[in-house]
Amino acid sequence: MTDDPERVVSSEEVPSASDADGTTADVARLEAERDEYLNHYRRVAAEFDNYKKRIARDQQATVQRATERIVAGLLPVLDDLERAVTAFEEHDKEHVQEGVELVHRALTTLLQKEGLTEIDPLGEPFDPHQHEALLQQPSEAPEGSVIQVLQKGFRLGEHVLRPARVIVAAPAE
Amino acid sequence: MTDDPERVVSSEEVPSASDADGTTADVARLEAERDEYLNHYRRVAAEFDNYKKRIARDQQATVQRATERIVAGLLPVLDDLERAVTAFEEHDKEHVQEGVELVHRALTTLLQKEGLTEIDPLGEPFDPHQHEALLQQPSEAPEGSVIQVLQKGFRLGEHVLRPARVIVAAPAE
Repeated sequence: MTDDPERVVSSEEVPSASDADGTTADVARLEAERDEYLNHYRRVAAEFDNYKKRIARDQQATVQRATERIVAGLLPVLDDLERAVTAFEEHDKEHVQEGVELVHRALTTLLQKEGLTEIDPLGEPFDPHQHEALLQQPSEAPEGSVIQVLQKGFRLGEHVLRPARVIVAAPAE
Repeated sequence: MTDDPERVVSSEEVPSASDADGTTADVARLEAERDEYLNHYRRVAAEFDNYKKRIARDQQATVQRATERIVAGLLPVLDDLERAVTAFEEHDKEHVQEGVELVHRALTTLLQKEGLTEIDPLGEPFDPHQHEALLQQPSEAPEGSVIQVLQKGFRLGEHVLRPARVIVAAPAE
C-alpha cells in the first residue's frame, strides 16, 4: 500500500542541483515533481490515519476473541460443576467426589493449555522472583531453602502470575 | 507525529502555475519545495512502517494481557476446587457440599463479570439464533414454544457462545 520512498527518489527522476539553470522547461518539470511528492505525501498520510483507526477497532476485537475462546472453554467446567452441586442431593459421597475430581482435572487441563504452570518449590533455594517468604523457621535443611509451600504459585508462560507462599529455612542457631 | 497535509500545502507556500516564468530564483525555490515534500513523504512513510511493526508486537501483548487477566481470576477457583477435592477425605458430605457450592458461585461470578449471560428460554418462542431444537413433542403449550431446556445456552455480550438445547411444542394433533 505504501509507496517505497527509495523508488520515488531514484537517480533518474531527481535532478542534481546543477540543473537549476532557470529554463521554463525546468520550472515545469520541478513543479510536476513537487506536486507528485506532495501527492505521495498526502496519500500515505491519509493511509496512515485510516490504518490507525482500523487498528483501534481491531484491538477491541482481538481482546474479545481471546476472552471468548477461554470463556467458551470454561462452559463445560461450569456445566460439570453445576451437575456436581446437584449430585449432592441425589448421590452418595463417593459418586459426588468423582464428579468434583473430574471438574478439577478439566479446569487444570484448560489452564495448562493456556500456558499455566505451577510453582511448587519445596526443597529449592528461595527465589524472591517466584516465591514469597511468609516465615523463616529453624530447620536441618540448607539455610535459605524452601521447607514448606503454604500456597502454590503460578506462572503463565514466563510471567509469574502469583508467587508461591513459602516457609524458608532459617540460619542454623 | 504525522504532519498535517493541509498545512504543508497552504496557499502561501505553493506557487500558482503562472509563476513558471523560468527565473533561477523560481527553480531554486521549486527545488526546495520539492525536496521538502519528498522529505515529508519519506518521514511519514518510515513512521507508518515503524507503526505497523509496533502494532504487530502490541497485538500479541494484548492477547497475552486478556488471557492473563482471566487466568489470574481463575486461580482462586482452582485453589478452592483443590481444597474441595481434599475435603472429601476429611469432612462430611454437608461440609464438602458447601465448598463445592462456593466454587460454583465463584466461577459463575467470574464469568458474569466477563460478560457471560445464560440463555434459559423455558416457555419462550423457539428462536433458531439462540436455541437448538433436539425434539418436538405434543404439548398443551403454544406450538413452537420451548417446553423443556435440556442444556442451558450462553451468550458473551451479544454473541451466542452456545445455543440452549431445547424441546419444542409440536403442532396440536
